[in-house]
Amino acid sequence: MIFTILPGEFAIIEQLRRRMTGPEGQVWVGDDVALVPGPLGALLLAADAVVAGVHADLSLVGLDDLGWKALVANVSDVAAVGGRPLAAVVAVAGPLGEIDVDLLYDGLLAASQAYGCPVVGGDLTSAPTLVVSVAIAGDAGPAQPPPVLRSGARPGDRLFVTGPLGSSAAGLAVLRNAAAAGDPAKGDSSVEFFADLVQAHRRPRARLAEGAAARAAGATAMIDVSDGLASDLRHLAAASGVGVVLEKVPVALGVPRVSDEPELLALGGGEDYELLFAAADPERVATVFVELGLGLPLEIGFCTADPSERRLRDGELPDVGWEHRW
Amino acid sequence: MIFTILPGEFAIIEQLRRRMTGPEGQVWVGDDVALVPGPLGALLLAADAVVAGVHADLSLVGLDDLGWKALVANVSDVAAVGGRPLAAVVAVAGPLGEIDVDLLYDGLLAASQAYGCPVVGGDLTSAPTLVVSVAIAGDAGPAQPPPVLRSGARPGDRLFVTGPLGSSAAGLAVLRNAAAAGDPAKGDSSVEFFADLVQAHRRPRARLAEGAAARAAGATAMIDVSDGLASDLRHLAAASGVGVVLEKVPVALGVPRVSDEPELLALGGGEDYELLFAAADPERVATVFVELGLGLPLEIGFCTADPSERRLRDGELPDVGWEHRW
Repeated sequence: MIFTILPGEFAIIEQLRRRMTGPEGQVWVGDDVALVPGPLGALLLAADAVVAGVHADLSLVGLDDLGWKALVANVSDVAAVGGRPLAAVVAVAGPLGEIDVDLLYDGLLAASQAYGCPVVGGDLTSAPTLVVSVAIAGDAGPAQPPPVLRSGARPGDRLFVTGPLGSSAAGLAVLRNAAAAGDPAKGDSSVEFFADLVQAHRRPRARLAEGAAARAAGATAMIDVSDGLASDLRHLAAASGVGVVLEKVPVALGVPRVSDEPELLALGGGEDYELLFAAADPERVATVFVELGLGLPLEIGFCTADPSERRLRDGELPDVGWEHRW
Repeated sequence: MIFTILPGEFAIIEQLRRRMTGPEGQVWVGDDVALVPGPLGALLLAADAVVAGVHADLSLVGLDDLGWKALVANVSDVAAVGGRPLAAVVAVAGPLGEIDVDLLYDGLLAASQAYGCPVVGGDLTSAPTLVVSVAIAGDAGPAQPPPVLRSGARPGDRLFVTGPLGSSAAGLAVLRNAAAAGDPAKGDSSVEFFADLVQAHRRPRARLAEGAAARAAGATAMIDVSDGLASDLRHLAAASGVGVVLEKVPVALGVPRVSDEPELLALGGGEDYELLFAAADPERVATVFVELGLGLPLEIGFCTADPSERRLRDGELPDVGWEHRW
């Protein structure tokens, strides 16, 4: 993982997006959730695939962790517009004779329970590599305003994240180091010592309540930090046509003890699944989050009128993020 | 493909099904569509994965054909309960640097247009093998009665299929023979001669209108013939707790010219995506189909009270069907 984005995937997605304008009123949100208009408000639809060896190293994490992550990535997509999940379907393609499908489903169903999103069906088929594709349906609930897209940020809006970043990448580093030194399953002390980071990597959380709160607090644009803060901030800025200035990079506890470049892990690590959002009124944001008993989101910067601006303090926002292998 | 089912996949699905009873009122329909109750009737959800080399041989069919089939398999799941598609999401995992994603989407979007099911989003990620996972959302529409599950067939019900079978398997055989003899892309005369069969394999159709008609005509149970008539009839019978007697095996035109065992292709070939349904009143079925301008479904047998009965004319229903590799 991480550092130096390969432009291919986003270029292909952009190309596909142009072919898929869809019926009027329907929003194609790239790799996030889509809004399908319906008589009782929008139906939310999203899909994410987790590939063994690409998104999850099965020598470091369990099949149950992979299952958890596959569902959480989808719940997070729904959270990223302030919606609520209704149900998910799961297509498992893989070497069925070799893998423990039951263990995979342990993780899927644990996440399903944690986020109130029943797994209602799916497909199971053989393939040389394990690919777990989850699709989720959600709705926008009775709340106003409408679901929050990536595209509504305006110059002057403040930028927030729902929590500090880098834990997942740091947890992966811990697991890798432990594996290089021995067997991580056999009680490596660093894995125990950095249990929170390891847990953040194995069992990331989706910020459902925070997404709904941000929507209620007037968020103008929102995205989940799945590729990494730098990359996802670029997505939000590009979709909204604004510039962005990052004043702070909130680094999660413990990350500096694992990496010499903690800020780079927070910027480019990805898979933290915190939400990044823009909002015009910081006081309203604070009020709503406090009222709902949620931790205050961290203010990290602001939007500007120059759509080409991508700044980290006094310099350029580095072009780092989750590395997709080709 | 075909002949002699490996029990593994269905056993695993059955095991998973037991773990996923879901909230009350929610129907988990195994590898078909799931019904998620909502304020305006059921939301239908299904997912199907198409794996290159397992479900599609890319030396014989194009990536656009694979894309078409991936979407049609899902539309067919919605058709199999008499529902209508709303939208689909597509997760593509594969060697993105090597495959023509645009060509894949040509087929996906052609099917999307043919069946009025917009592709509204998805995911794109790298993986060693190409796996195209489509998930579909649909609804039951304003019509009564409710969506038709697999489980409602009763002793005495007549069995119907919406068209003759075996074309897809026969078309695949034509392509394979042509490939063994030379390059099928270069105008092999058998491929041209059996163009209808080849087309049935490359671009199968989903029977949306027929599914809605069967529902309107009082179908008690329904399934799409994706694994093969013998296999899918067993699924329907098992879900309904009835016995089945197959009196006729309708073989599609041309199939006997391609295979020495045309009936075996019709019974076990799979991927024809015709609908198999049970209904108590054959006259009502005929009336509704004629009124809607649809071809009359073919009456092929009936349901019995002995839940263990699986008969083909005077013998055992053979245990053949789509072969899933492990």
